[in-house]
Amino acid sequence: MSTNVSKTVQLSHGGGGKEMNRLIKDIFFKAFDNPILRNEEDSARLHFNGDTAFTTDSFTVAPLFFAGGDIGKLAIAGTVNDLAMMGAEPQFLSSSFIIEEGFPIDSLKTIVLSMAAELKKSGARIVCGDTKVVPRGCADGVFINTSGVGRIINNGISVKNLKHDDVIIVSRDIGRHGAAILMAREGLAVESELTSDCATLWPIVEQLIASNVEIHAMRDATRGGLSAVLNEWASASQVGITANESEIPVSQEVAGLCELYGFEPFDLANEGTFILAVPQDCAEKTLQIMQTFCHCEQAAIIGKVNDFKPGKVILNTPWGSSRFLDVPQGELLPRIC
Amino acid sequence: MSTNVSKTVQLSHGGGGKEMNRLIKDIFFKAFDNPILRNEEDSARLHFNGDTAFTTDSFTVAPLFFAGGDIGKLAIAGTVNDLAMMGAEPQFLSSSFIIEEGFPIDSLKTIVLSMAAELKKSGARIVCGDTKVVPRGCADGVFINTSGVGRIINNGISVKNLKHDDVIIVSRDIGRHGAAILMAREGLAVESELTSDCATLWPIVEQLIASNVEIHAMRDATRGGLSAVLNEWASASQVGITANESEIPVSQEVAGLCELYGFEPFDLANEGTFILAVPQDCAEKTLQIMQTFCHCEQAAIIGKVNDFKPGKVILNTPWGSSRFLDVPQGELLPRIC
Repeated sequence: MSTNVSKTVQLSHGGGGKEMNRLIKDIFFKAFDNPILRNEEDSARLHFNGDTAFTTDSFTVAPLFFAGGDIGKLAIAGTVNDLAMMGAEPQFLSSSFIIEEGFPIDSLKTIVLSMAAELKKSGARIVCGDTKVVPRGCADGVFINTSGVGRIINNGISVKNLKHDDVIIVSRDIGRHGAAILMAREGLAVESELTSDCATLWPIVEQLIASNVEIHAMRDATRGGLSAVLNEWASASQVGITANESEIPVSQEVAGLCELYGFEPFDLANEGTFILAVPQDCAEKTLQIMQTFCHCEQAAIIGKVNDFKPGKVILNTPWGSSRFLDVPQGELLPRIC
Repeated sequence: MSTNVSKTVQLSHGGGGKEMNRLIKDIFFKAFDNPILRNEEDSARLHFNGDTAFTTDSFTVAPLFFAGGDIGKLAIAGTVNDLAMMGAEPQFLSSSFIIEEGFPIDSLKTIVLSMAAELKKSGARIVCGDTKVVPRGCADGVFINTSGVGRIINNGISVKNLKHDDVIIVSRDIGRHGAAILMAREGLAVESELTSDCATLWPIVEQLIASNVEIHAMRDATRGGLSAVLNEWASASQVGITANESEIPVSQEVAGLCELYGFEPFDLANEGTFILAVPQDCAEKTLQIMQTFCHCEQAAIIGKVNDFKPGKVILNTPWGSSRFLDVPQGELLPRIC
């Protein structure tokens, strides 16, 4: 079969020869085009001056396409958000594909175009890449690794930097991504309004930094959800955190799915929802800025840092009782990102 | 089953909760320990001043263990070499694992320790990472992505920089990695002396740069082998390259396997063999330096840059004839890296 007319990815597309060069030029270079990528060296040549953030993520989400996104959008938003959460401008990304033999070229193009569209939201550029093809049954469609580097603009953000009396803010209603993947996997309700929160967070973070908001800690609540982030913060900063369940925004759809499947919305993954710890006197300003971004209209103060039980997160329930909100454990939802 | 006593990787190890934290701490953090990694932020905080190289590679080699290396050694050497080939000091690496459910924890530890051992050869450090677990049948054991960044020390090296009359040097006998993988896959001869050339090339590159060797182009001959590199150079620099088959070192074992399976040693992958283009008056000095490294004792001048057929590589055979050495095509050997 000539690869000129091939409609699926073949092993030869990963062989380092003519077919691979053609695939890379026709699909990746075309979608990600920029002067650094055009250089065609083995590594990208960049210039940095000062503190720089470096991060990596592999994406294995199933299904590859879901309400509100796909693996490509997720791969770009995920890595860009990791940089943004460190107060770093997402500048340069790598993209590395592991593709299962027989994967449709059209689906690959859709994923790559989705990546290119998501890159525009932060201005980050793909500057280097890699393509591997494995035989049928040795991968599940497509896996993507995106690593990223960017200039740190705000150097004070750290999991170890939470201070007594900081307020905890969540950027929007939680659990949407995990719920959207669950819905797609179970073949549930196309009529549902539920979509993943998958989004690039750099524009809002850039605005917060430009407005001189004093951010003590910031983290997107991906795998392990809100529970994982709050516990990591409490532990790393050796502070107590108290959150009020009634103040945590959860959509009706997510709440319904959680009830049906026995999940906690606090444990469900998000892919465009972040948590902030800021000093009390910054809280109002922070919320005002956040709420000008449409996906953060529901941004809310959900809790506070205290010195009550260092290392622990306490959840006040709507019924007046309280309990520890623990780090999630068990299988949760596999392959949500 | 409690993950305390689990002997295989479970889906919960990728869930973002307690089990994942424990796996990361017990295996990855222990082996890769350094102050940057210990920070536990989502991204590593680094400092750069000047030109920096950035590269990525995903590794899907099968089998995971082969004569002369394993996927872990390969992942470190491969990414370190990509940086080295740009004249960059390999400083900081990311490591991202995609692990198939049920993969033995002991094998994972072996791979991670092999990575840690290989890191020592260049001084590079793992500063960030990611762990995903996919259900049985959705991956083949372990895939590893390593991305890397490092300070560029020699800024003149480029695929576009070959000059008329440059000599082409190969660092050692070619085709060993591809042949070793083929051997492992076919279950051939444990008694054979053939091992992969898999190696970290930074020490020798550092020495060449420190000795002020004028390097015009440098590239490790991985997928697509010597043929791919020479053709890429000829095309990017718009020069002709002539290579002499009789001067290209090939071991008896590799030559024998090639004959048996119908491969060309020029097309076989290497993982610790590199090609240089240097001005004629630098050639002797370059060879002398290279040959002080034991894996480069066979370093040899194999050809020359000319203006005969720009963009083409001509191979002079030992029988007095000559032919174009083309970019490899077809399936070659899949999953050699």
